[in-house]
Amino acid sequence: MSSLQRIQFYTAPYSPYSHRVRLALDEAGADYVAHNFPNTRTKPEWYYQVNPRGRIPSIAYGGPDVPAEEPSPESVKLTESLALIEFIADLFPESGLLPKDPILRAKARGFIQIYDSFIQPPFKAAFFLGEAIEPLLLELEKIQAALPPTGFAIGQYSIADCAVAPFFVRMKMFLRRGIGAFSQENREKLSEVLASEKFARFRQYVEDLENRPNFQKIWDEVELWTKLPTPRKE
Amino acid sequence: MSSLQRIQFYTAPYSPYSHRVRLALDEAGADYVAHNFPNTRTKPEWYYQVNPRGRIPSIAYGGPDVPAEEPSPESVKLTESLALIEFIADLFPESGLLPKDPILRAKARGFIQIYDSFIQPPFKAAFFLGEAIEPLLLELEKIQAALPPTGFAIGQYSIADCAVAPFFVRMKMFLRRGIGAFSQENREKLSEVLASEKFARFRQYVEDLENRPNFQKIWDEVELWTKLPTPRKE
Repeated sequence: MSSLQRIQFYTAPYSPYSHRVRLALDEAGADYVAHNFPNTRTKPEWYYQVNPRGRIPSIAYGGPDVPAEEPSPESVKLTESLALIEFIADLFPESGLLPKDPILRAKARGFIQIYDSFIQPPFKAAFFLGEAIEPLLLELEKIQAALPPTGFAIGQYSIADCAVAPFFVRMKMFLRRGIGAFSQENREKLSEVLASEKFARFRQYVEDLENRPNFQKIWDEVELWTKLPTPRKE
Repeated sequence: MSSLQRIQFYTAPYSPYSHRVRLALDEAGADYVAHNFPNTRTKPEWYYQVNPRGRIPSIAYGGPDVPAEEPSPESVKLTESLALIEFIADLFPESGLLPKDPILRAKARGFIQIYDSFIQPPFKAAFFLGEAIEPLLLELEKIQAALPPTGFAIGQYSIADCAVAPFFVRMKMFLRRGIGAFSQENREKLSEVLASEKFARFRQYVEDLENRPNFQKIWDEVELWTKLPTPRKE
C-alpha cells in the first residue's frame, strides 16, 4: 500500500496495553519505529506532545522522519490501545486482523469488550489486590465457553487475540513465577484449577496465542520478569 | 443493501448502553424490531438464549421473523454496545457512522475509549457514589480540549457521538432534576461550573448531540425520568 505513512510507535517492554498494539503491528508485518520507555509511569516532558495524558501506547503517524524524542507537529498523534489495533487492521486490510464479514467483526469486538468489562476487573482484583479468585474463574469459564472448538477467538487470528494475549499469557507467567498479591493458597488453587481438565480449551487457546510468531517475536519472559516493577512475592 | 438481514434489537428505555445502539440504528436509518424490557436488571429465562450474561443491549441478526420472546437458533446473537455500534457502521457504510479515512476512524475510536476509561469512572463516582466532583471536572475539561472548534467529536457525526451522547445528556438531566447521590452543595457547584464560560464548548457539544434528529426521535426525558429506578434526592 503506497499510501502508508511513517509509524512511530511509543511503547514499554512490559506494558500489556502496548503489547496489544505491537502484536497487531507484527501480525500485519508493518514497518514501524519503536520507542521503548524504560517504564510505564514517568514520562519525559516531550512525550506530552504525543499524548497529553502521558500514557502509552501511542502512534505518531505520518510526518517527517524525526527522532522519537522530537515529535513533529506534522504527524497525527493517535492513542488508546483498542483504537490503535483497529487502526492497524484498517491500514493493513490484507493482514486479516479483521475479517470482511460484519458478523465476524462484531464477534471479534464483542470478545474484546467482554474481556475488558468482565475478565480484566476480577483478574486485577485477584492478582494485584489479593481478592477472591472465584469471580475470575467464573468469568474464565464463560469466555472459554465462547471460544470455537479450535483456533482463535473467532476462528481465524484477529484483533480479538491481539487484545487478550498480553493479559492471558501474563496471567500464566504470574502464576508460575508467583507474581501477585494473592496468598500462597490462592495461587496454588488457581494454578490447580487452571491446570484441570475443565480448563483444557482455555489452556490450549493461551498456548496458541503464545506460540503465534507475532507473540514469539518479542516475548522474552525472562527479560520481562527481571524488569517487572511488581516485587516478587515469596 | 440487499444482503441486510433482520435486526431484532433488545433494549430498555433508560439503559444508556442500549441508547448508544439505538442512536446508531436510527442515524443509519436501519429497519429494526425493538424489544423493550421494562427494566435493565431482571430478565426472563428465554433472554439468556440471546445473551448468556442476560445483559442488554443485544442484537439477534438474521434468521426467521420470530417473536422477540422466541429467539431463533438461526439468528446470530451479538452483544456489547461498542461492538454493536461498530456492527451498524459496518452494515451501513453509507451512513457515515464511520468515515473511510483510517485516521478519522482511529480518532473516533480513541474518543470512545477515552470516554469509557477516563470520564465514566469519575462520572459514576460523583453521581452515584457521592464522591468528589473535581476528578470529573478535570476530565471533562480534557475531553473538551480534544473537541474540534465546532461540530461533533471528529467533526462529522460518528459512532463516537453515539457512544457518549446517552451519558452526557443524562448528566445534564440528572443535574437539572437533582438525580444522584451527590450533596446539594456538589450539585450546585457542578451545575455552576458547567454553566460557566470555561465549559461553553462542551455545553455546545452536548446540545448538538441532544438536538440531533436520532436523539430527538426517542428521547422523552419526562418518561425516562418517571421510570428511573434511582430515587429522586430532594
